[in-house]
Amino acid sequence: MSSSSTPKDDSRITIVGAGTIGLSFVALHLQFTPPENITICDTRPDLAQYVATTLPLYQSPPRHSIVSAINLTSDLPSAVKNATIVQEQGPENLAFKSKIWETIEAHAPKDALLWSSTSGIVASAQNVNMKDKTRLLVVHPYNPPHIMPLLELVPSPQTSQAVIDQTLKFWRDRGREPVVIKKECTGFVANRLAFALLRESIHLVNEGVVTAEELDTVVETSMGPRWAVAGPFKSYHAGGGARGLRGFFENIGGTVQGCWDDGGKVNVGEGWEDALFEQAEEAYGWVDTGKRDRATKRVLEAVREES
Amino acid sequence: MSSSSTPKDDSRITIVGAGTIGLSFVALHLQFTPPENITICDTRPDLAQYVATTLPLYQSPPRHSIVSAINLTSDLPSAVKNATIVQEQGPENLAFKSKIWETIEAHAPKDALLWSSTSGIVASAQNVNMKDKTRLLVVHPYNPPHIMPLLELVPSPQTSQAVIDQTLKFWRDRGREPVVIKKECTGFVANRLAFALLRESIHLVNEGVVTAEELDTVVETSMGPRWAVAGPFKSYHAGGGARGLRGFFENIGGTVQGCWDDGGKVNVGEGWEDALFEQAEEAYGWVDTGKRDRATKRVLEAVREES
Repeated sequence: MSSSSTPKDDSRITIVGAGTIGLSFVALHLQFTPPENITICDTRPDLAQYVATTLPLYQSPPRHSIVSAINLTSDLPSAVKNATIVQEQGPENLAFKSKIWETIEAHAPKDALLWSSTSGIVASAQNVNMKDKTRLLVVHPYNPPHIMPLLELVPSPQTSQAVIDQTLKFWRDRGREPVVIKKECTGFVANRLAFALLRESIHLVNEGVVTAEELDTVVETSMGPRWAVAGPFKSYHAGGGARGLRGFFENIGGTVQGCWDDGGKVNVGEGWEDALFEQAEEAYGWVDTGKRDRATKRVLEAVREES
Repeated sequence: MSSSSTPKDDSRITIVGAGTIGLSFVALHLQFTPPENITICDTRPDLAQYVATTLPLYQSPPRHSIVSAINLTSDLPSAVKNATIVQEQGPENLAFKSKIWETIEAHAPKDALLWSSTSGIVASAQNVNMKDKTRLLVVHPYNPPHIMPLLELVPSPQTSQAVIDQTLKFWRDRGREPVVIKKECTGFVANRLAFALLRESIHLVNEGVVTAEELDTVVETSMGPRWAVAGPFKSYHAGGGARGLRGFFENIGGTVQGCWDDGGKVNVGEGWEDALFEQAEEAYGWVDTGKRDRATKRVLEAVREES
């Protein structure tokens, strides 16, 4: 359903925390759910003005009349009391999250789906104060969620299969790509992968092999467009010819291992930071994320049309 | 210049080795250089028939009449004697490469550019038998080079700046993205980065966190399209808000380090291979690389049009 058609959906969605991720989710939900069924709960004193000026930046085109119909409140119990979905993106702080789920569980309907957008605090830690731990599920987006299709669904060992299944259906009905992560782990999957490549990137810039900007050019003109179309396993399976991924490792497994053996093991706080941050600042200054997001949408459309 | 306009170029290009990479480079060169100025040198006995049937697969649309005008030979000295560029993609074998450059140097014009497409054998190893070691340069493509814009230029310490500059100009004039790698290193830059992500990918599949196909979906719906538009440093610089990459590490440096500390350290030959290869085989079977390449072209066009 496009953003210009009339939204039809009986979800009642409460967004807890109106930061970048929260508003981006609101922009996404507005493509499917009427604004009067969406509630934003945040304690910032200028909430109405902030939402009115910031949310339209996530819409293409901006739709101010729709934005003004969204419910705004700073009171969590009333914000969740009629919700079918509560989506939390508060501070990344375990004390905050375990407290807020206790409150939400006490006031939300018993069958509401309870989702955390956390990038790092697993559901089995967040749910400690909950009576029914089967209800909580991490639904971790890739920023910004109104553009990027991926949603990592990371259940705790207590999360019920019914909650997972309803969440999968919700996102698939909206044309997104939910993937269930089968074990709670540090950083989940997308960030772990990206940070592994980032670590090697920092090492190569530290060693003076390329500049930060040259490294970005390398990625933008090789594995970026390739992986937009076919992920690493599919790509190397194709690259191995008739013997697939097995053939790939037969052909260049030695080079792969050589790169692994030689790979950089930089750590945060080891002193490489300032020189790298200055390179990024000099190369990029302020990045126009609107332009980036328009290009990303075009890329995703191109892949969809060709698949 | 598009492939349908009349090629105008005075390069005389000799491709040594008619494998996948060699023919893909020929398809690229044919967009700019008349076929009578292109020579393919390969010792396979069915060379003419092989080129006539295989090369059109790399062309869109196939142009059989142009293909038939390319010079074909198995004799290396005559193949290179009038070349302005010799591009080698023979076996990844140091004895072969050091021998072939000795022959090429003896027979090619003194000012011909000498490029190796190797993915692993640095120029300072390949050039041992050459009298003038300033001439040899690694020009490593990302497969397939007729689609992917990146070319990694990896000089040896002896390679002359003039050779690097002429090579940069050649590829930039053709709308490609040559990047000079400032130090010879195992796997150069693109493969090192991709293999770092591949290592973590294998670890996560081994641990049962996701299947190989799910991992590909994660990449295709998050960092793939993102990095097609903005590489990792630019992306995280934008993600850090007003404080850029510095802000990014201030906000989530702890999570980044946590992922690094927890990262998998699988090695080739440790026994994970069969289960992974079977997953890839079951998920993908035979990959239609023509379809993949059409989608990749569309992605690259979308990025170009929006930048």
